[in-house]
Amino acid sequence: MNDIQARLDLQRRERLGMVEAIWGEHKTTHQIVEIVSRLKDVREFALVTRVDYEKAMELKKYLHDAVFHDQANCVTVGEPVELNPKLGEVVVLSGGTSDLPVAAEAQLALRCHGVKVDLLMDVGVAGLHRLLNNLETIKKAKVVIACAGMEGALPTVLAGLVSKPVIGVPVSVGYGVSAGGKSSLAGMLASCAPGLLVVNIDNGYGAAMAALRILKS
Amino acid sequence: MNDIQARLDLQRRERLGMVEAIWGEHKTTHQIVEIVSRLKDVREFALVTRVDYEKAMELKKYLHDAVFHDQANCVTVGEPVELNPKLGEVVVLSGGTSDLPVAAEAQLALRCHGVKVDLLMDVGVAGLHRLLNNLETIKKAKVVIACAGMEGALPTVLAGLVSKPVIGVPVSVGYGVSAGGKSSLAGMLASCAPGLLVVNIDNGYGAAMAALRILKS
Amino acid sequence: MNDIQARLDLQRRERLGMVEAIWGEHKTTHQIVEIVSRLKDVREFALVTRVDYEKAMELKKYLHDAVFHDQANCVTVGEPVELNPKLGEVVVLSGGTSDLPVAAEAQLALRCHGVKVDLLMDVGVAGLHRLLNNLETIKKAKVVIACAGMEGALPTVLAGLVSKPVIGVPVSVGYGVSAGGKSSLAGMLASCAPGLLVVNIDNGYGAAMAALRILKS
Amino acid sequence: MNDIQARLDLQRRERLGMVEAIWGEHKTTHQIVEIVSRLKDVREFALVTRVDYEKAMELKKYLHDAVFHDQANCVTVGEPVELNPKLGEVVVLSGGTSDLPVAAEAQLALRCHGVKVDLLMDVGVAGLHRLLNNLETIKKAKVVIACAGMEGALPTVLAGLVSKPVIGVPVSVGYGVSAGGKSSLAGMLASCAPGLLVVNIDNGYGAAMAALRILKS
Amino acid sequence: MNDIQARLDLQRRERLGMVEAIWGEHKTTHQIVEIVSRLKDVREFALVTRVDYEKAMELKKYLHDAVFHDQANCVTVGEPVELNPKLGEVVVLSGGTSDLPVAAEAQLALRCHGVKVDLLMDVGVAGLHRLLNNLETIKKAKVVIACAGMEGALPTVLAGLVSKPVIGVPVSVGYGVSAGGKSSLAGMLASCAPGLLVVNIDNGYGAAMAALRILKS
Amino acid sequence: MNDIQARLDLQRRERLGMVEAIWGEHKTTHQIVEIVSRLKDVREFALVTRVDYEKAMELKKYLHDAVFHDQANCVTVGEPVELNPKLGEVVVLSGGTSDLPVAAEAQLALRCHGVKVDLLMDVGVAGLHRLLNNLETIKKAKVVIACAGMEGALPTVLAGLVSKPVIGVPVSVGYGVSAGGKSSLAGMLASCAPGLLVVNIDNGYGAAMAALRILKS
Amino acid sequence: MNDIQARLDLQRRERLGMVEAIWGEHKTTHQIVEIVSRLKDVREFALVTRVDYEKAMELKKYLHDAVFHDQANCVTVGEPVELNPKLGEVVVLSGGTSDLPVAAEAQLALRCHGVKVDLLMDVGVAGLHRLLNNLETIKKAKVVIACAGMEGALPTVLAGLVSKPVIGVPVSVGYGVSAGGKSSLAGMLASCAPGLLVVNIDNGYGAAMAALRILKS
Amino acid sequence: MNDIQARLDLQRRERLGMVEAIWGEHKTTHQIVEIVSRLKDVREFALVTRVDYEKAMELKKYLHDAVFHDQANCVTVGEPVELNPKLGEVVVLSGGTSDLPVAAEAQLALRCHGVKVDLLMDVGVAGLHRLLNNLETIKKAKVVIACAGMEGALPTVLAGLVSKPVIGVPVSVGYGVSAGGKSSLAGMLASCAPGLLVVNIDNGYGAAMAALRILKS
Repeated sequence: MNDIQARLDLQRRERLGMVEAIWGEHKTTHQIVEIVSRLKDVREFALVTRVDYEKAMELKKYLHDAVFHDQANCVTVGEPVELNPKLGEVVVLSGGTSDLPVAAEAQLALRCHGVKVDLLMDVGVAGLHRLLNNLETIKKAKVVIACAGMEGALPTVLAGLVSKPVIGVPVSVGYGVSAGGKSSLAGMLASCAPGLLVVNIDNGYGAAMAALRILKS
Repeated sequence: MNDIQARLDLQRRERLGMVEAIWGEHKTTHQIVEIVSRLKDVREFALVTRVDYEKAMELKKYLHDAVFHDQANCVTVGEPVELNPKLGEVVVLSGGTSDLPVAAEAQLALRCHGVKVDLLMDVGVAGLHRLLNNLETIKKAKVVIACAGMEGALPTVLAGLVSKPVIGVPVSVGYGVSAGGKSSLAGMLASCAPGLLVVNIDNGYGAAMAALRILKS
Repeated sequence: MNDIQARLDLQRRERLGMVEAIWGEHKTTHQIVEIVSRLKDVREFALVTRVDYEKAMELKKYLHDAVFHDQANCVTVGEPVELNPKLGEVVVLSGGTSDLPVAAEAQLALRCHGVKVDLLMDVGVAGLHRLLNNLETIKKAKVVIACAGMEGALPTVLAGLVSKPVIGVPVSVGYGVSAGGKSSLAGMLASCAPGLLVVNIDNGYGAAMAALRILKS
Repeated sequence: MNDIQARLDLQRRERLGMVEAIWGEHKTTHQIVEIVSRLKDVREFALVTRVDYEKAMELKKYLHDAVFHDQANCVTVGEPVELNPKLGEVVVLSGGTSDLPVAAEAQLALRCHGVKVDLLMDVGVAGLHRLLNNLETIKKAKVVIACAGMEGALPTVLAGLVSKPVIGVPVSVGYGVSAGGKSSLAGMLASCAPGLLVVNIDNGYGAAMAALRILKS
Repeated sequence: MNDIQARLDLQRRERLGMVEAIWGEHKTTHQIVEIVSRLKDVREFALVTRVDYEKAMELKKYLHDAVFHDQANCVTVGEPVELNPKLGEVVVLSGGTSDLPVAAEAQLALRCHGVKVDLLMDVGVAGLHRLLNNLETIKKAKVVIACAGMEGALPTVLAGLVSKPVIGVPVSVGYGVSAGGKSSLAGMLASCAPGLLVVNIDNGYGAAMAALRILKS
Repeated sequence: MNDIQARLDLQRRERLGMVEAIWGEHKTTHQIVEIVSRLKDVREFALVTRVDYEKAMELKKYLHDAVFHDQANCVTVGEPVELNPKLGEVVVLSGGTSDLPVAAEAQLALRCHGVKVDLLMDVGVAGLHRLLNNLETIKKAKVVIACAGMEGALPTVLAGLVSKPVIGVPVSVGYGVSAGGKSSLAGMLASCAPGLLVVNIDNGYGAAMAALRILKS
Repeated sequence: MNDIQARLDLQRRERLGMVEAIWGEHKTTHQIVEIVSRLKDVREFALVTRVDYEKAMELKKYLHDAVFHDQANCVTVGEPVELNPKLGEVVVLSGGTSDLPVAAEAQLALRCHGVKVDLLMDVGVAGLHRLLNNLETIKKAKVVIACAGMEGALPTVLAGLVSKPVIGVPVSVGYGVSAGGKSSLAGMLASCAPGLLVVNIDNGYGAAMAALRILKS
Repeated sequence: MNDIQARLDLQRRERLGMVEAIWGEHKTTHQIVEIVSRLKDVREFALVTRVDYEKAMELKKYLHDAVFHDQANCVTVGEPVELNPKLGEVVVLSGGTSDLPVAAEAQLALRCHGVKVDLLMDVGVAGLHRLLNNLETIKKAKVVIACAGMEGALPTVLAGLVSKPVIGVPVSVGYGVSAGGKSSLAGMLASCAPGLLVVNIDNGYGAAMAALRILKS
C-alpha cells in the first residue's frame, strides 16, 4: 500500500473560485506535507485548517514557508491574493472570547480570498447594549457571520435587526446541554428570525466560503 | 380491581401552600370526576390542567359548577382565593401568539392562588423593539415568566436586561429541530445570561408554582 | 383575558424588506383572521404558511380575497409586488416528488417579494444524469435552493458543481432513520462541499427569505 | 489580529447586581489575565469559574492576589463584599460526595455577593433518613439549592417536603445512561413535584445567581 | 402467501413455566384470533396484551369466551390457574393514577400464573408520607414492582427503604422531556439505590414475568 | 405551477437492472396515478410501495389493472417478469408475526424481478429451537434476509450459524426503547457476528434490491 | 469549607443487608481514604468500585490492608463474610473477553456478601454452541447475570432457554452505534424474551446487589 | 480468578469460512498474546484489528512473527492464504484521505482471505469528476465497498451508477453533527439509492467479511 496518494481536486479554484483547503484534524503530518507539496508543485496557495501548535511546528520543519495563525489554528503556505475591495466587506461577530478560534478561522479564510473582514468580539446578547452600539458598523457589511456557543441567540437577534444575509456559526463551547455546540446549532436552525442561514458547528471555514459565494454571486 | 381509588394528597395545601392540581391529560373523564368530587367533599378548590374542549364539556356534564378556561385548556371547580396584592405581581411574557396556551396556564394557576398577573404577548426577539418598549412594565414585577418556542431566546435576552428572577418556559411549538420544544429547552438551559431558571417544556403550571414559592419565600 | 391581541411587527417590511409572514400551523383560524385583518387595515400584503386545505377553506369564509396555494400549503391575502427582474433569478430544486410542498413554499415566498423563480423537480442524486442535464439552467441563477429528504445529498453534490450560493433545505420525508428529516439535515450540515448553507427542516419560507437577503445585499 | 480585546460588560453590576464572572474553561491563561487586569483597573472584584489546579497556579504567577478555591475550582481576585444577613440564607445540598465541586461553586458564588450559605452534603434519597433528619435546617433557608447526579431525585423529594423555592442542579457524575448528567437533568425537569426550578448541568454558578435574584426580588 | 401461519412456541410453558402471551398491539384481529384458536386447540390459556376497547370487542365476536380487562387493556381466553399462596406475594405500586394501566397489566399477568398481588396506587414521592405510611405492607411482599412516569423516582426511594427485589417499570406518561417515558427509564437505570432492576417502558407484563422467575427460583 | 411533472428515471432498468419503484407514502393519489400512467406509456412494470388499503382502492379507480398486495402494502401494475431459477433463491425470515408487512414487501419486490423467495415466519430467538429446526432450509439459499423488531437479535444469531450473506432489516414494531425500530437497528449494526449487512428500518424493498444486486453480481 | 465530611449511611447493612460500597470514580484519593477510615472505625468492611491501578496504589499508601482486585478494578478493605452455601449460587456470563471487568465486579461484589459465583467467559451468541454447551451449568444457578456489549443479545437468548431470573448487564465496549454501551442497553430492554431484567451500563455491582436481594427474598 | 481463559471459536473457519479476528481495542496486551498463542498452537492465522502503534510494538515483544500494518492499524500473525483470483475482485473506495484507516482495514481483511482488492482514494462527491473518471474500474469489481465520513454521500451516488452490491462504511471523521460518524451512518441508511447495504461506523473488517460472504455465495 506504499503508493497510495491523495487525489487532489486541482480544478476546484477554476470550478468554484476557491483555493484548496486541507482539513488538518484527521490527517497525519506526513499526509499534509505530501498534499501541500503537490499544491506547491502546481503553484497553488494552500490553507490547512484545524492544526494545533504542535502539529504546526512539525509542519514547519518540512514546509519552511508555512505560516501558523495561532488564533485561527490554521497554517497557510504561499502568498494569498491581494485584498479586493470590490468584493465588498464581511463582518464577523463573536458572542464571547471563547468563540474566537472559530471567528478567526472565518476571518482568515476570507482574507485568503481577498475579502476585507471586520471582527467584532464579545457582543453576546446577555449584554445587549454591546451589540446595539455596533449596529452601524454591522449594517455596512454585505454579509454578516455570527459565531456563538451556548444558546446561540446572537444571530437570531442580529437577523431581526439587519436585512443583510446573516450566517450563524454554532461554536462548541459550553457544558451540559450545550456541550459540543448542539444547543447553539439547534437554536440557530430553530430561529424565529426570517432567513437566518446556518453551517455546521465550529465551521468557520464553511461560513467564509458561503460568504464568498454570496459576494461573488 | 373495582375498588381502586386515587390517593389524594390532601395535606398539600397545608404543607406547600398550593391547591391540588389534577393533570388531566392521561386521566379518563371518570377518574377526573372522582378526584374532583372528593376534593369538593372536603371543600377544596380544584384546578384541572391539560383538558381540551371535548373533555371539558364531558366534565361539565358531571360537575355542573366546573368552569372551562379555553385559552389555558384548564378547568376549575370552586371559588379561587381573592387577589392578594401583598404577594407582589408576576409578569408573564410570550414570544409569539402560538405560545399563548402555556402563558395562559401560568396566568390562571397564579390567579387561583391570589396572585396578580400581567400578560404581555408577542414580544419575541426577532422584533426586539417590542420587548424593549415594555421594559418598564416588566421591571415592576417581582418575578418574570417568559414562554417561548423555537430557539427560545426571549428569557436569555430578558435575564440580561432585568435583575428579577426570570423563569423560562420552553414551548412545544416549532418544527424540524424545534419540534416538541427541545431546541427551546436547550437554549434556555444553555443561556449565557446569569441565573436564568427553567422548567419542563409547556409547564406553565410549574412555572407558576415556582413563582408562587418565590413570592412567598 | 378577552382583550389579548397579537402584537404585529409592522416595521418589519421597512426594517428587513420582508412582508409579514404568519406561521399558520399552531394558530387557530380565529387568530389568523384577526392578524390578517389588521394587516389589511394598514394595507399590508399577508402570507400565511403551513395551512392545510380545511383551514384554508375556513379562512376563506372570513377573508373573501384569500387565495389558497395548494401545493405550497399557503394562503395569501392582497396583491403581491410585481416581478422585479433586476433582483436576479433563483432556482429551486427538489430531490423527489415528495419534496414538492417545501419547494413550492420557497417558490411562492420569493414570488411574493417579486423574485423570479425556476423550479426543477426530481433531480435526486440516485439518478445523477437528471441533475447533470440541468446544470446550465442552474448556473444561470444567482442563488440555488435545493430541497431534499432522506440522505439529503443533493445540495452537497450541487455545491461541488456550481460556485453560486447554495441553500440546502432538509425535507421531512423518509422513514426509519430519516423520519422527520433529521438524517437529511445532518447530511447537509456535515457536507464535504465547501460553503453549503442550511436552514431548518421543511423551512422553505426561511430559505426564500435568506435568498432574498442575498439578492438584495 | 493582535489588537483584539475582550469587550467587558462593566455595567453588569449596576444593571443586574452581579459581579462579572469569567468562565475559565475555554479561555487561555493569557485571556483570563487580560480580562481580570482590566477589571482590577476599574476596581471590580473578579470571579473566575471552572479553573483546574494547573491553570490556577499559572494565573497566580501573573495575578499575585488571586485566591484559588480548590473544592469549587474557582479563582477570585479582590475583596468580596461583606456578609449581608438581611438578604436571607441559602441552603445548598448535595446528594453525594461526588457532587461537591458543583455545590461548592454555588456556595462560593453566593458568598462573593454577601449571602450566607449552609452546605449539607451526602443527603441523597437512597438513605432517606439523612435528608429527613435535616429538614428543620432546610426549612429555615429562603432558597434551597439541591445538587445531584445519577437519577437526580433529591430536589424532587425536597420540593414535596418544603414550600420554599427549590433550584435543582444536575451534576455530571454517573456512568452509562447517567454519564454527563443527562438523566439527572431529565429527572429534575420531569419532576412530579410542583414548582421545581432547574439550571444547566453542573451550573452551580447559575443556581447561585438565580438564588441571588430571588433574595433581592 | 395465503398459507402463512404463526409458528407458536408451544413448549414455552414447559420450558419457562409461562403461558404464551400474545402482544396485541401490532397484530390484526384476524392474526390474534388465529393464534388464540390454535392455543385453544391444544387447551392452552391465552393472554393478549395491549388491546384497546375496540379491538377487544372485535375479538369477542370471534372468541365468545374472551374476557376484556379494561384497566389492563388485556384480553384473556380460558381459565387461569388457581391462586397459589406458596409462591409468595407481589406488591405492585404506582406513582400516580395515570400509571394504572401498566400496573394493572402487571397485576393481571401475575394473577394468570396464580400469584397473589396487592396493588397500591398514588404513592408518588412528591407526597412522601403516602409511601411511608404503606411501608409495612410493602415489606411483606417477596417482590416489589414499582410503576412510575415523569422523573420515575419512586423505585429509587423504595429500593433505599426495603431489602426485597425491586423492579422499576417506567411509564410513558409525561410531556416535554418525560414524553414517552424516557426520563423515567433513565432515572431508574441511573438510580443511586443499590440493586434496582428495570424493564422496558410500560412493560408491566415483563415485570410480572421477571417477578414470577424470582418467585420460582 | 400546474405543469410540474415528475421526472422519471426511465434508464434505471437498463442501468441498474431494477424496475422503477414508487414510494407511495408521501405522494398523493394523483401524483402516483400520473407516474404510473407514464410508466405504462413506455410499457414499464410499476411497483408502488407503502400504500394502505384506502389509498390502494383510490388508485384502482384510476388504474384498473392495479393489483393490491395487502400483506406487503404494495400495488403493482403490469405483468412481472417470470421466475428465473438461475438467479438462485432468497430466504426471508421474520422474528414475529408483527414483522410480516416488511418481510412481505421484500418477498414481493424480489418476485417482481423473477427471484424465487421462501418466507419463514416466527423464528425469533426467544424460542431458539424454531430457528435451529429450519437451518437446513436456510442454508440452501444464496442470500438470507432477516426481519426483526424489538432487540433485533435474529440476524446476529443467523450470521453466526450460516456463511451466506445475511441482510438484517430492523422493523418498527416495539414500544419504549424499541419504538420506531431504533433498538433493533442499533443491535444489527453493533452485531458481534462478522459481516452482517443492514438496511434502514422497515426497508424490505431495499433489502430485496440489495439481494438482487448480490444474485446478479 | 475545611470541615466538610461525608455523611455515611451506616444503617445500610442493617436496613438492606448490604455492605457500604464506595463508588471510587469521581472521588479523590483523599475522600476515599477518609470514608474508608471511618468505616474501619466502626469495623465495617469496605468495597471501593471503579478504581484503576494508579488510584489503587495511591490508596494502599494510606490504607495498608487494602486489597486491589485488578480484573474487577475494585479495592476491598477488611475481611469479607464467609461463603454461605445456603444462599444459593449465581452464574455470571460474559459475551466476550472485553466484558471481563464488569463480570468480575459482579463476581467480587457477590463474594463480599458470601455468595458463591461461577464465571463463564466468551459465550457470546455469534458462536452459539459455546453457550449451548454450558446450559446445564447455567440451569443449576438460582440467578443468572449476563454481561454483554455490542448488540447485547446474550441475555435475550439465555432468557429464552432458562426459567431462572436473568439480569442483563450492558457493557460499554463497542464502537460506532455501540460505543458507550447504548445499543446493548437498548437491546436488553427491548428484548423479545419474557421477564429479562436490566441494570445500567457497566453496573456489575448493581447486578450483584439485585441478585443478592433475590437470593435473600 | 487466575485461571480465566478466553473461549476461542475454533470452529469459525469451518462454519463460516473466516479466520478468527481479534478485536484489539478493549483487550490488554496480555489478553491478546494469550489468544494469539492459542491460535498458533492450532496453526490458525490471526488478524488483530484496532491496534495502535504502541500496542503493536508491545505485541511484537511477545509475538516475534507479528506484522504491524500501520495504515490499517492491524497486526497479523502467520501466513495468509494465497490470492484466489476465482473469488473475484473487490474495489474499496474512500471519500477522503482521512478515511484511509477504515479502507485499509477492509482491504487487509479481504487479502487475508485471498481476495484481490483495488483501493481508490479521494473520490468524494464534492469533486464528482474524480469519481466519474474511475467508473470503468469500479464496474469491473464483483463487490464495491465505499468508505466515507461527514455526510457520507459517496455510496449513495455510487449505488445509483453501478448495479453491483455496494456496501457503505460510515467513517468517524468529522466534527459537529458529523462527529463520530453518526451523520454519515444516517445518510447511508436513509439513502435514496435502491439496495445500498450498510455496516457499523468504522467497521472496515465487517464490510470485508460481508463482501467475502457475497463472493462465496
